[in-house]
Amino acid sequence: MSDRKAWRIGVAGLGTVGAGLLTFLAEHPGFAPARGWATVTGVSARSRSRPRPFDISNLPWFDDPVALATSPDNDLFVELIGGSDGPAKAAVEAALNAGKPVVTANKALIAEHGAALAALAESRGVPLLFEAAVMGGVPAVKVVRECLVGDQINSIAGILNGTCNYILTEMEATGRSFAEVLAEAQRLGYAEADPTMDVGGFDAAHKISILAALAFGCAPNFAAAEIEGIENVDLLDIRMARDLGYRIKLVASADRSPDGVLVRVHPSLAPLSHPLAQAGGALNALFIESARTGRIFLQGPGAGAGPTAAAVAADIADVMAGAIRPVFQAPAASLKPFDPVDPSKMMGRAYLRFLVKDEPGVIAAVSETLAEAGVSIESFLQKPSEGALGVPIVLTTHSVAESVLAAAVERIAGLSAVLDRPRLFPIARI
Amino acid sequence: MSDRKAWRIGVAGLGTVGAGLLTFLAEHPGFAPARGWATVTGVSARSRSRPRPFDISNLPWFDDPVALATSPDNDLFVELIGGSDGPAKAAVEAALNAGKPVVTANKALIAEHGAALAALAESRGVPLLFEAAVMGGVPAVKVVRECLVGDQINSIAGILNGTCNYILTEMEATGRSFAEVLAEAQRLGYAEADPTMDVGGFDAAHKISILAALAFGCAPNFAAAEIEGIENVDLLDIRMARDLGYRIKLVASADRSPDGVLVRVHPSLAPLSHPLAQAGGALNALFIESARTGRIFLQGPGAGAGPTAAAVAADIADVMAGAIRPVFQAPAASLKPFDPVDPSKMMGRAYLRFLVKDEPGVIAAVSETLAEAGVSIESFLQKPSEGALGVPIVLTTHSVAESVLAAAVERIAGLSAVLDRPRLFPIARI
Repeated sequence: MSDRKAWRIGVAGLGTVGAGLLTFLAEHPGFAPARGWATVTGVSARSRSRPRPFDISNLPWFDDPVALATSPDNDLFVELIGGSDGPAKAAVEAALNAGKPVVTANKALIAEHGAALAALAESRGVPLLFEAAVMGGVPAVKVVRECLVGDQINSIAGILNGTCNYILTEMEATGRSFAEVLAEAQRLGYAEADPTMDVGGFDAAHKISILAALAFGCAPNFAAAEIEGIENVDLLDIRMARDLGYRIKLVASADRSPDGVLVRVHPSLAPLSHPLAQAGGALNALFIESARTGRIFLQGPGAGAGPTAAAVAADIADVMAGAIRPVFQAPAASLKPFDPVDPSKMMGRAYLRFLVKDEPGVIAAVSETLAEAGVSIESFLQKPSEGALGVPIVLTTHSVAESVLAAAVERIAGLSAVLDRPRLFPIARI
Repeated sequence: MSDRKAWRIGVAGLGTVGAGLLTFLAEHPGFAPARGWATVTGVSARSRSRPRPFDISNLPWFDDPVALATSPDNDLFVELIGGSDGPAKAAVEAALNAGKPVVTANKALIAEHGAALAALAESRGVPLLFEAAVMGGVPAVKVVRECLVGDQINSIAGILNGTCNYILTEMEATGRSFAEVLAEAQRLGYAEADPTMDVGGFDAAHKISILAALAFGCAPNFAAAEIEGIENVDLLDIRMARDLGYRIKLVASADRSPDGVLVRVHPSLAPLSHPLAQAGGALNALFIESARTGRIFLQGPGAGAGPTAAAVAADIADVMAGAIRPVFQAPAASLKPFDPVDPSKMMGRAYLRFLVKDEPGVIAAVSETLAEAGVSIESFLQKPSEGALGVPIVLTTHSVAESVLAAAVERIAGLSAVLDRPRLFPIARI
């Protein structure tokens, strides 16, 4: 344990995670996990005077995070500003260019600019670590990057957004609508004022794009992710799925096949007995499937100041430990191209829900349309009319080409007896 | 990614894991995960001529693993011999003394001699890694050692022996006895000819001793572990526990409290809905509870050539990456002493099962003895007589001092109406 060193750390961004980190470092002065110890030697945030539950008056203040990132008084730059572009990106680039290790919790930045930043970090010979960007306190990034290098990961799938999981869990538990539960989550601070990143599936898509890059040794390709949020999951769907033995979860998945890589986020059905179905509330959960090891399952708190700050601290300790690894699985220069799977080749089972007029012949029309398209029905459930809303019909299909199914559903949507936009959710391949 | 290097690897031990590793390296010539690549430059095993599913005729052979460990033709020594002493220990010590990094899957060696080996490794400035020693393909060692350094782990608990978990799962599923299922497991190769290490709880105790050391920054102290195997879990107990809403699992746990550290392995009851109760077959599962992060759950295959060899390969990659960390949480010289908890201070809930004669007054005698000792009963279940076996009585207690409960059970065991040794299993604190 020779070669001990004082690490002077600049922290940009003093929101939830930044506050958690500064609190931790204040409680552990000289945090010294490996062969060094840490002191904060500079902070930056949007407002210096905003009331905070910890004292920053003795810390050097930087209005400009780029100035903090490049300050000769710092050895390591921690970026907790957030956002894929703007000051976060500028500061991270500046720190790497100055040859400083960077630790960030910024999923958007890594998902959208990860390959270029990895190339920059590797050209300067400094680490770029982002454990806190995915699953908060659950070490998904390290497990995927470091623990399965003697294996081949073929598939990862999980629940990566705690806000959506909380909303879906509450809808089922309380029988309230999406809008009601979302409004409550916003009041409680579990959801942002603009909830689009979370409920629209974009946050989960950022995270699964990062994990896909780590797992498959390709550049992150957020633009190729197929994304559907939970806004169109009705309480009716949660109940009907349950009657069929499933729970609806926002599942993010990445699969590698000879056809390429498929990264997607969809409300998906998981069997009630499945660990993903049982991960309730704000929990995050992830399956990693590889050729030799088989299936590993990780579960834990995906957000919050405590878990996320602990993940940032673990990355700081990793910088101190001095390991030299590619940022993703392979050196940035040799990352494999990301070949998106041709959507027309995708096969899968699905859940379909229609609201139809309570009149003769409707079920026949729906089932004939599916039969003509070659869609084979696995289970069928019709419930009594919900009055003006119409009669709910739910069915699950056997495996079918997704494009074929989507076209058939489009035709059914055009039937005059169909009252609402049909819902089509995949049954998770887990 | 400068500084690439050829790593010449000596592998001692060609059993299940060694075979898995050589197969992997043969399939991935020049395995090059980080900044180096690997070639096997020497092997050692008990028999050179034993038929193997892979060719070792082109590899330099060493009769003596110590000679392999110290050979100037190797840069890294992989120990897969097994056993806490004898050639495994001699070879690992020799390799470390020669300044060579060591990767081992040997849980007994690390649990019983970990502190001395860590001191030796750190004095020579080389890593000593043992991911494959605990939970096979599930990266428990790395998660506990590296991912929670910015946190304080207070408790770990899980299922760490796949053989026991398989036996208990099969007993419940098929209604067969421990002896029958064990015999079948031995026929199928899931259990050793001498099953004592597994079914006696010693293997799980080795593993939890290692995790406790990593989690709490103390020297491994296998001698302080409280160990009870599954030999006394009857089918009757599995059924009665289930009637009460529990499943019996061999739970290994380590807890830190102001009173000290408690490391134990016991057949324990977990609620049926709990993830530990739902981890069936040969799965391993682990909860890690820490102050900031809360609870992380890991699950996966705890044994087998594929998963364990992948864990060894990940350790080899870690050696290549060049991180310098203490072997346990703290440098070997400053590992905290392991203060075992005074057993008389332990409190907990428990499951008790008695087989009694079918005659009046027996239940009164049992419950009076418990009442006199101050043991408060939470639930009580009496089943119809099983003929000559007697009448089974099962009860669960509220939290009680374990020493008080054990003394009361001892008195009940002495009652003339009690036909069989009473069973006392803790209800897991999870």
